[in-house]
Amino acid sequence: MADQIRIAIAGHGNLGRGVETAIQKNPDMRFVGIYTRRAPESVIPSLAGAPVFSMAELPGHAGRIDVLILCGGSKEDLPEQGPRLAALFNTVDSFDTHARIPEYFASMDAPALANERTALISVGWDPGLFSINRVMGEALLPDGATHTFWGDGLSQGHSDAVRRVPGVAAGVQYTRPVPEAVDLVRGASRPVLTPRQSHRRDCFVVLEDGADAEAVRQAIVTMPHYFDQYDTTVTFISAEEMENSHRAMPHGGFVIRSGNTSSTQTQVVEYSLKLDSNPEFTASVLVAYARATHRLHLSGQYGAKTVFDVPPGLLSPKSAAQLRAEQL
Amino acid sequence: MADQIRIAIAGHGNLGRGVETAIQKNPDMRFVGIYTRRAPESVIPSLAGAPVFSMAELPGHAGRIDVLILCGGSKEDLPEQGPRLAALFNTVDSFDTHARIPEYFASMDAPALANERTALISVGWDPGLFSINRVMGEALLPDGATHTFWGDGLSQGHSDAVRRVPGVAAGVQYTRPVPEAVDLVRGASRPVLTPRQSHRRDCFVVLEDGADAEAVRQAIVTMPHYFDQYDTTVTFISAEEMENSHRAMPHGGFVIRSGNTSSTQTQVVEYSLKLDSNPEFTASVLVAYARATHRLHLSGQYGAKTVFDVPPGLLSPKSAAQLRAEQL
Repeated sequence: MADQIRIAIAGHGNLGRGVETAIQKNPDMRFVGIYTRRAPESVIPSLAGAPVFSMAELPGHAGRIDVLILCGGSKEDLPEQGPRLAALFNTVDSFDTHARIPEYFASMDAPALANERTALISVGWDPGLFSINRVMGEALLPDGATHTFWGDGLSQGHSDAVRRVPGVAAGVQYTRPVPEAVDLVRGASRPVLTPRQSHRRDCFVVLEDGADAEAVRQAIVTMPHYFDQYDTTVTFISAEEMENSHRAMPHGGFVIRSGNTSSTQTQVVEYSLKLDSNPEFTASVLVAYARATHRLHLSGQYGAKTVFDVPPGLLSPKSAAQLRAEQL
Repeated sequence: MADQIRIAIAGHGNLGRGVETAIQKNPDMRFVGIYTRRAPESVIPSLAGAPVFSMAELPGHAGRIDVLILCGGSKEDLPEQGPRLAALFNTVDSFDTHARIPEYFASMDAPALANERTALISVGWDPGLFSINRVMGEALLPDGATHTFWGDGLSQGHSDAVRRVPGVAAGVQYTRPVPEAVDLVRGASRPVLTPRQSHRRDCFVVLEDGADAEAVRQAIVTMPHYFDQYDTTVTFISAEEMENSHRAMPHGGFVIRSGNTSSTQTQVVEYSLKLDSNPEFTASVLVAYARATHRLHLSGQYGAKTVFDVPPGLLSPKSAAQLRAEQL
């Protein structure tokens, strides 16, 4: 297609590979390259024949790329790369450090505005799709309560925390909603739930040789903030079992808004995700929002944006008239 | 509040009354009047003290109203009133004759554009929230299938059809998703389902004196399009039971998108509603979208719009900065 949207990625971890895969499901897009900090020849694209470039080449490639999807991490990569790249490209990223979003937004807004670029930040499912449902739930049912549950799923942050415990050779952590809590919330009783009442945490750990299992268990379950407020199980497994049974990255969750439109009438809105692969789904969300970012840019909407600023119709390859005729 | 959004309604049926109720949950809005084709003195507002005017006074009241919510029916009222009122006011309506949406859109777009007004059409939950989830589901998971289930709920159109059968004194119809079908769809197997496999229809009927129950039952279950493609039950009840047990208007349903991001990875997105009162919830949706309509108008976005054109953040009374800080 002559007018395909040209997409590139900066960074080639799980998320970047997911973007390469997702592009193949979107015929109105073309994948034009992987930009990496590693030696380009060491990177093996998921998409056969995809060109690999050094990150240093990006400034010279501004005319080749419609939207650059930033696939780096929120802690180190995005705060450093984001503002620099937002001056040169339309960008989409999955910045997910909730507390620092206003600061990151401001750091992206200035260079994007100054250079008439569009920078869509914090895209994915949380932040992202779940955020949309929190905002819409509250707006549609102002007299109500919102609950977000995560899981069953592999939590990257909590798995990292487990792996930092001395004596742990490998570890993963699954977050699971407590079914009784989900039922209460669906029943529209607006319960006030503690972390322990809402989620439990199940850890699978491979011990280092000679490590003290009970000491490791104690270090995990008492870890402040990460585990001490939850019922946590720790199961010790072999390296083989870790490799065979815990490589998938499932996730998901629910956003439930219950509220009253009048004293006797209760309404419940629920949005839920059940994901075999968290990075592939997140990448697929980034790609759909890259289409919207391209269109926002074409219509002169410059600066930093979030999913709250994106009309749903812009996500679809179909025209507004086609969507009205077929899907309204 | 000095800068409250001034909302009025045209039409005072279940939906109009729902809007009066919903406004009370939204302190940034003020209800400024009911406009009716009936004698104004015959209309009893739900909101104590709400002014009631004749529809004929609307043209003289353009300066008093920020958004006029059109609460008439899709069959007779909106096609006739809508275009006339869209020339004078920013409007929101719940036009729900899916097949005629493009035509209705065009009829609202021209007068709204010519007069620099914003006309948001087909708002509610289907068309409306469900439509958004159909479009987003398809955009986020292009390789997939979407299923919409309705119910358990009272269907207005099918209840009307039951009541038109000779011998029926009163009747209601409940649409119910077939649980096995819902399970199949949630399981991501992308089944192809017939109407009969997807929903069943349960009717409750009060017979007229002397009516032949079996003839009435046959007339209902064989009614083309409405019932013949479904498993339909007809239960005969007394006028008292109809009055006592079938006055509520519950509804709801699910939009489920399942798809593959790669050959082995399946993802399922589900949006569901469980509504005690269909008209109160629909009204609450209209009110939130009235806020968005006011803002679209303030930003110069004139003409007819649909929910696909509305960024989610515009539904919330909170500022964009507040939403980013608190809800992203």
